[in-house]
Amino acid sequence: MRPSERPLTVALAGCGAVGRALVRVLSGARTEDGRAVRLLRVLVKRIEEVRPVPSQLVTVDLDEFLASPAEVFVEAIGGFEPGHTIARRVLGRGGRLVTANKALIAAHGASLAALARESGGWLGFDAAVGGGVPVVRTLRDALCGLPVTAINGILNGTANYVLTRLEAGATLREALAEARMRGLAEADPGRDLDGRDVADKLAILAWVAWGIDPARVVVDRTGLLPDPERLVHQAGETGGRLRLVGECTIHGGAVRARVRPAVVAPDSPFGRTLREQNRVEIGLGWAGPLELSGPGAGGAPTASALWGDIQAAARVA
Amino acid sequence: MRPSERPLTVALAGCGAVGRALVRVLSGARTEDGRAVRLLRVLVKRIEEVRPVPSQLVTVDLDEFLASPAEVFVEAIGGFEPGHTIARRVLGRGGRLVTANKALIAAHGASLAALARESGGWLGFDAAVGGGVPVVRTLRDALCGLPVTAINGILNGTANYVLTRLEAGATLREALAEARMRGLAEADPGRDLDGRDVADKLAILAWVAWGIDPARVVVDRTGLLPDPERLVHQAGETGGRLRLVGECTIHGGAVRARVRPAVVAPDSPFGRTLREQNRVEIGLGWAGPLELSGPGAGGAPTASALWGDIQAAARVA
Repeated sequence: MRPSERPLTVALAGCGAVGRALVRVLSGARTEDGRAVRLLRVLVKRIEEVRPVPSQLVTVDLDEFLASPAEVFVEAIGGFEPGHTIARRVLGRGGRLVTANKALIAAHGASLAALARESGGWLGFDAAVGGGVPVVRTLRDALCGLPVTAINGILNGTANYVLTRLEAGATLREALAEARMRGLAEADPGRDLDGRDVADKLAILAWVAWGIDPARVVVDRTGLLPDPERLVHQAGETGGRLRLVGECTIHGGAVRARVRPAVVAPDSPFGRTLREQNRVEIGLGWAGPLELSGPGAGGAPTASALWGDIQAAARVA
Repeated sequence: MRPSERPLTVALAGCGAVGRALVRVLSGARTEDGRAVRLLRVLVKRIEEVRPVPSQLVTVDLDEFLASPAEVFVEAIGGFEPGHTIARRVLGRGGRLVTANKALIAAHGASLAALARESGGWLGFDAAVGGGVPVVRTLRDALCGLPVTAINGILNGTANYVLTRLEAGATLREALAEARMRGLAEADPGRDLDGRDVADKLAILAWVAWGIDPARVVVDRTGLLPDPERLVHQAGETGGRLRLVGECTIHGGAVRARVRPAVVAPDSPFGRTLREQNRVEIGLGWAGPLELSGPGAGGAPTASALWGDIQAAARVA
């Protein structure tokens, strides 16, 4: 069998909105050198849910999952555990791990990357920031060598969706229910609305841009909670729109990062960032920043970012 | 000597705004694995101009240039010749070529890529489209496998700079003089203003997105010439702004592409694209397109795209 005829084997942890979208992407997908993709094992939290994968692939047993001979492990299950265990076990044995888990990477990215280096493993986390907006890839690959001076952005699609819906008169409860129905929000959107998720993403971007251990990036944080409706209402009274904005800059090797609800003009770039869109502005010391925007949350965009990393992992071989 | 201590050697054709900016980028630059960069030879059209490189490196002799033992050849000299000869000779002997020459890639990209494949050479042309906006890299790498449905954009920084200045009351002559002074416009801005440059870029993007030979992409073209001042004035009378917009879509394997002066609302994304900014919208069948914008012309942004490709070439080894 020629290499191109041997399918790339994948094990997937998590089968929520992102995991399901990834299963759809993988079915019928081909790597650059023409390999099909075969899903060998899917780890889930609860076995009873109906899923788009054959039931014999599904397991709730972490050890069974990790025993899979898959070439690439994908983690889209969220939370520190079992994500951290999966990452340490896969990378520790020289395996290839692709993850969308920003909390994990923000806390343990540097040590996981070190583990991968020592053991000959490979870690991809492009899907952890920006959803379908390739901000990690742009910072890491596309700007090679250019000094990044600042990174500002709307980095949480769920929060932005909620803000846009509140502006249109929905209640917080309605906006969150819609966000969940659309596969944007998790069961607990607390981290989205209180700024912790954006803080994690800023730490990851600072790591990629400036090589600073993300666990050491201190983010000054004020989120939308406890009262997004009131904040949106106050912003509206002054003719503005409320956005949850993350900002980081570097001064003399030290990163300054903060998340805050900002009142912006409706026709400003951030004011015009609606629903689950993300928008990132990368300052490069040129006349204007490089700007990226697009769908920042939801199954399909995040799955596409995972698929990009899976293909990168396949090339490492 | 360890590999990381051996400098990466580069030969550069062209020392205009882009070439000079690249010389600045390369001095003091390091590749990912820590190699410095040494410029071995610079090909110029006229020897007498003062340049930021030692005079013993400069030549007007194409054969002398091509005889350089440089690992990577960079073409930023523009025009079909000597660009085409450089590309065929370097790639034909299995060498690595990085080019910013969109006219060349639009006309001969597919045959040059085939030549590189046959001979074991390597061709990079990320700098041919978008200046500092990594649109080629995003289409090729960041969206891996996603079906692109449409590509629309403001793709000519010189034309957009001129339009912005005409809007502010400058004459065409003044606007062009400014653009030249800022290193945006070449001596002959005809290709920028009549839409040919955008047509070339659309053909290249269609190639990257859909694998269609760029020489076979027919672009329906109406540029700003012969009378940009009148067009801008007419657009202004209706409260709009004039932009030179390129659009391409794919239907049943056939690309439909056109360039046209479009009247847009001042607060629309294209209307808000000012001076030498480029803006590209990539339709992906999601709720909204992926949008990239940033400095689309000028020495530093284009040089950064070349440097990205030089580093990619260095990795091929």
